Amino acid sequence: MKLIGYFRSSAAFRVRIGLNLKSITVEHASRHLRKGEQAAPDYVALNPQKLVPTLVLDTGEVLTQSLAILEYLEETHPEPPLLPSNPVDRARVRALALITTADIHPIQNLRVMGYLRDKFGQTEESAFAWSRHWIETGFDAYEASIAKDRKTGSFSHGDRPTLADLCLVPQVFNAARFKVDMTRYPTIQRIYATCMKHPAFDAAQPSRQADAEA
Amino acid sequence: MKLIGYFRSSAAFRVRIGLNLKSITVEHASRHLRKGEQAAPDYVALNPQKLVPTLVLDTGEVLTQSLAILEYLEETHPEPPLLPSNPVDRARVRALALITTADIHPIQNLRVMGYLRDKFGQTEESAFAWSRHWIETGFDAYEASIAKDRKTGSFSHGDRPTLADLCLVPQVFNAARFKVDMTRYPTIQRIYATCMKHPAFDAAQPSRQADAEA
Repeated sequence: MKLIGYFRSSAAFRVRIGLNLKSITVEHASRHLRKGEQAAPDYVALNPQKLVPTLVLDTGEVLTQSLAILEYLEETHPEPPLLPSNPVDRARVRALALITTADIHPIQNLRVMGYLRDKFGQTEESAFAWSRHWIETGFDAYEASIAKDRKTGSFSHGDRPTLADLCLVPQVFNAARFKVDMTRYPTIQRIYATCMKHPAFDAAQPSRQADAEA
Repeated sequence: MKLIGYFRSSAAFRVRIGLNLKSITVEHASRHLRKGEQAAPDYVALNPQKLVPTLVLDTGEVLTQSLAILEYLEETHPEPPLLPSNPVDRARVRALALITTADIHPIQNLRVMGYLRDKFGQTEESAFAWSRHWIETGFDAYEASIAKDRKTGSFSHGDRPTLADLCLVPQVFNAARFKVDMTRYPTIQRIYATCMKHPAFDAAQPSRQADAEA
């Protein structure tokens, strides 16, 4: 399999963690999002959304969208599981994952920030405030969802990493870039620290990728 | 079970279609989003994101996030299936669903439009143009993904409704409000028309809900 990503992409980061946790070795390729390489015709033919990541299977079939890719990996490589076994708990983990992947990240990713600057004439500072607002709105809800729930353990759900953590950690990295005050989120911070001690998360972080830049 | 929604919410609309397709009867309740009823303390206790829908199970357990709820319904009420059986096909359907639910709807929902007007001082016209831009960006990719794929049938995947269609139809309703030119999307239009002839989709549409307004 080949994963086409970008070192700084939160969505690609999620999939890298999942691959590492499941000990699946893939070839890595990169599209430089700031240089617009995701809009090249050969890439658009694979991924009409012009987003990363894209997973190309050995059969030639092409998968897109990080959550769809992670659910595919879960179905085809079930061990260790990224989801609990009980349907209610699976819904809890998926809902937590969607707080970050649907209701934070798409509102403040590179293309949206570009629109704010180019079409609305917003300053860098104003675009940063926008980004912080949506991260904080989402993290407020995430923290409230996990802080007092007995289903929360050393990770967002129980004592091993789930899909929720794979989505949370890249968003915490992103929050640091936008200078979000993380002291507001003690439970998120605790889980993030636990995750980053895990080799699967550590090896997936942006600075450890072959295409990483300062 | 009780579904707390809002007639015009795309996310609640998705879940209503899923419930109808699976012939699951639930009690319906509503939070009026434009009046801010989703921020009332009793609702925030159930859904810290202050978003709809919320599904309250008979056991008292609370599920949030439309896609997590639909996956739960699929796992607990498997017939008729909302996902194909093959993992690659399941990934295709989930990726299509995520084009609308992650990469269109959260960028142009009520709270985001409010920020554009209140914090950026954008006009109604400018906020509408923003909304159209993200719908068109997403629909361009959706149309390109399905138009020439032999896996597309009378629905987005094959000849029966899947999760992808449950998410597409509410977004088409939303696109009409923002006056998106749908002639650019012949395959989406064809599938939308097929869906709306299906009683499960028809009964779930906003105007047929108890809390509907003109």
